[in-house]
Amino acid sequence: AQTANGGGGGGTRVMIIGGDGYCGWATALHLSARGYEVCIVDNLCRRQFDLTLGLDTLTPITSIHDRVRTWGEISGRHIDLQIGDICDWEFLSQAVTSFRPDAMVHFGEQRSAPYSMIDRQRAVFTQHNNVIGNINVMFAIKELVPDCHLVKLGTMGEYGTPNIDIEEGFITINHNGRTDTLPYPKQGNSFYHLSKIHDSHNIHFATKAWKLAATDLNQGVVYGVRTEETVAHPALINRYDYDGVFGTALNRFVVQAAVGHPLTVYGKGGQTRGFLDIRDTVRCIQIAIDNPANKGEFRVFNQFTEQFSVNQLADIVTREGKKLGLTVEVTNVPNPRVEAEEHYYNAKCSKLQDLGLEPHLLQDSMIDSLLEFVVQYKDRCKMELIKPAVDWRKAGVKVNTMGAAVAAK
Amino acid sequence: AQTANGGGGGGTRVMIIGGDGYCGWATALHLSARGYEVCIVDNLCRRQFDLTLGLDTLTPITSIHDRVRTWGEISGRHIDLQIGDICDWEFLSQAVTSFRPDAMVHFGEQRSAPYSMIDRQRAVFTQHNNVIGNINVMFAIKELVPDCHLVKLGTMGEYGTPNIDIEEGFITINHNGRTDTLPYPKQGNSFYHLSKIHDSHNIHFATKAWKLAATDLNQGVVYGVRTEETVAHPALINRYDYDGVFGTALNRFVVQAAVGHPLTVYGKGGQTRGFLDIRDTVRCIQIAIDNPANKGEFRVFNQFTEQFSVNQLADIVTREGKKLGLTVEVTNVPNPRVEAEEHYYNAKCSKLQDLGLEPHLLQDSMIDSLLEFVVQYKDRCKMELIKPAVDWRKAGVKVNTMGAAVAAK
Ligand SMILES: NC(=O)c1ccc[n+]([C@@H]2O[C@H](COP(=O)([O-])OP(=O)(O)OC[C@H]3O[C@@H](n4cnc5c(N)ncnc54)[C@H](O)[C@@H]3O)[C@@H](O)[C@H]2O)c1
Ligand SMILES: NC(=O)c1ccc[n+]([C@@H]2O[C@H](COP(=O)([O-])OP(=O)(O)OC[C@H]3O[C@@H](n4cnc5c(N)ncnc54)[C@H](O)[C@@H]3O)[C@@H](O)[C@H]2O)c1
Repeated sequence: AQTANGGGGGGTRVMIIGGDGYCGWATALHLSARGYEVCIVDNLCRRQFDLTLGLDTLTPITSIHDRVRTWGEISGRHIDLQIGDICDWEFLSQAVTSFRPDAMVHFGEQRSAPYSMIDRQRAVFTQHNNVIGNINVMFAIKELVPDCHLVKLGTMGEYGTPNIDIEEGFITINHNGRTDTLPYPKQGNSFYHLSKIHDSHNIHFATKAWKLAATDLNQGVVYGVRTEETVAHPALINRYDYDGVFGTALNRFVVQAAVGHPLTVYGKGGQTRGFLDIRDTVRCIQIAIDNPANKGEFRVFNQFTEQFSVNQLADIVTREGKKLGLTVEVTNVPNPRVEAEEHYYNAKCSKLQDLGLEPHLLQDSMIDSLLEFVVQYKDRCKMELIKPAVDWRKAGVKVNTMGAAVAAK
Repeated sequence: AQTANGGGGGGTRVMIIGGDGYCGWATALHLSARGYEVCIVDNLCRRQFDLTLGLDTLTPITSIHDRVRTWGEISGRHIDLQIGDICDWEFLSQAVTSFRPDAMVHFGEQRSAPYSMIDRQRAVFTQHNNVIGNINVMFAIKELVPDCHLVKLGTMGEYGTPNIDIEEGFITINHNGRTDTLPYPKQGNSFYHLSKIHDSHNIHFATKAWKLAATDLNQGVVYGVRTEETVAHPALINRYDYDGVFGTALNRFVVQAAVGHPLTVYGKGGQTRGFLDIRDTVRCIQIAIDNPANKGEFRVFNQFTEQFSVNQLADIVTREGKKLGLTVEVTNVPNPRVEAEEHYYNAKCSKLQDLGLEPHLLQDSMIDSLLEFVVQYKDRCKMELIKPAVDWRKAGVKVNTMGAAVAAK
């Protein structure tokens, strides 16, 4: 086993909730390859959303059972697999009791803002699934593995777009001659983002009331798909979402460029956010595990490396696409979201770098290789899934049977 | 019909969710008496909690059906009654569609901090019941009655005990040379308080995304029991909780003084909170309804009139009890909660007074008459229910069958 930042897991037991997902799968392999004992917990609801809505990952992913089996064969390392819903306490408590994690990395939430805005049922599902699942995780740690470090995925979207600098979790406020350092004010822009705000408040309380050790990672938008381990065998390939519900900004633009669809800039395109390469996601998680929060500590890191506006991303992808001989156009579509389209944005992200993160920046070469990778799968792309699929203002109480709508085209 | 602050309902249609509860019942009668058209929505879960845990109100309340019938007989005014759970969308949408409220006053949540800390199941119930119920209410307004004003009961406990002044909902922050007015940072001290923080964030979003008109009332601890209308007939009497789960600070002290139980000060007793008379609760609601928020506005009022520390309250009750010939002792019990016991506290509460609230302050006469009223019912008091019943640190995953524990004594 190596030292804290060096990459040696040394048998540290890590439960990865949501380990079949985009970030979770890459992280599970990254840690397993480095000597951590990994257990994946997932109820596969993400795959079910695709089935229900008629969506699909661009990349041909295999079943979680095949993924884990293949990894065992090529690496000689075992990943434990527990299929079930963390909202189901009987399941979760059994999984935690049997695996006894030193750290729980909690990716296991409904993570799409548009999905949470489809209709009332999905809004309710999102907040219930995320908030109750996370409460169960906190109770599991408190009662079953009290020394376990909770590493929880939040989002930079919890902060909204305030007109002042965004700090990492807390802000020192001088007010009427007095001073306190308080949780940074939160403003969510979808029922999904709000569910993460709720989680953060709940976790903060548990660190105080129960002395839980917790790290809340306010992650930016992740891009890329290949990591060292997922390229080791075709059956290990990661998912890549490009549709209007689960696809995220930069990943979507790259697919659009690859298939000759105009880049869909929502509204004015001045929306600025933090971004990071998926190869940094896995490193950030490892760094958090290797440098755990203290008991009673609610530690918040902003997990991104660079900030870009949507227009800047469109420019970069256009330029790089042209270099590869692709015709890339940009179209400004009416913004289906309710959000500021021009705003100040200056978010801090130094704490993970202080602990050793060496960012993969969004260089031309990165976009090039991502574009080249994506082009290989362009025949799997369904053009009708690209358009923005969910309008914030239209989120209604009527059940929105989107799958049927797509099929009917 | 009179003008805005004068008390004339003028047929304004008000749905009171949680109208069988302590604040809701008093408010329903107050508004009905003043010419508002009132509809009570309640699933009676509060009565079920009492049955399950072996608790009871000090005052002999009648069924909601008898309450509403009696009110109709003595006042000649009809109160509509819809029994059901607002987490049940079919029920709520039907109730809203048939009544078509101009304002929805939302008291209908699980409102006890100790209840939310009994065990995992009750923590989960509290956040699910409160957060999902409130989401349903927001969707009902958006889709069924978009001009309806949401008047939502929050709690002063959402703010926690920061070391700076507590503003009403928002705070202007100067930071690194820039300025913004942002939601006041929130720090909840129980799963109940946290559920209210979640509600506030969700509502703030809905005002922005859907142009809902909402007033969030961060209410202090309510004391007292009699209002003009509830004293008009014995069947209209309001509930009065004194037990360790649902009883609140001052109301509990008054009962303790009346029955000769030492006043149970938790820990050092320096905990300071905002308080208000229930006769002001009903007025505050009326003021909020008469002066609705604008569409798209998230308006926050701190709804209390005076702040006291627990020790100050114990002193006042001791002094007034002695005047009435009662022997009043004070005992410092180990604090079952996790909270600061000595802290700065300076919360603002001017907005409701600017709109016309004339506070009933906690004068000696108030305590006297409350004590005298409570003494009438002292034979109904079960001494074993007085002790603090729930320890924050012991909230566990094992189902806590508290009813059985009390019965076994
Ligand atoms: N992808 C991004 O750009 C991004 C950005 C910021 C934050 N995040 C956060 O990182 C985490 C992972 O994101 P992702 O993109 O990998 O999402 P994903 O949807 O690909 O993966 C989430 C996984 O969690 C599982 N899951 C959901 N609810 C569950 C439950 N109740 N019980 C068990 N498993 C459950 C799903 O089946 C899925 O496999 C999420 O919490 C997300 O909010 C992601
Ligand atoms: N009493 C206080 O001191 C105080 C202080 C601050 C804030 N508040 C807030 O004011 C509101 C009313 O408080 P209260 O003391 O009257 O509480 P209460 O428990 O006496 O009344 C709440 C009522 O809501 C009903 N209810 C709960 N969940 C429901 C659901 N899902 N569907 C339908 N009905 C439901 C209950 O049956 C009950 O009758 C609460 O939201 C509470 O958080 C109260």
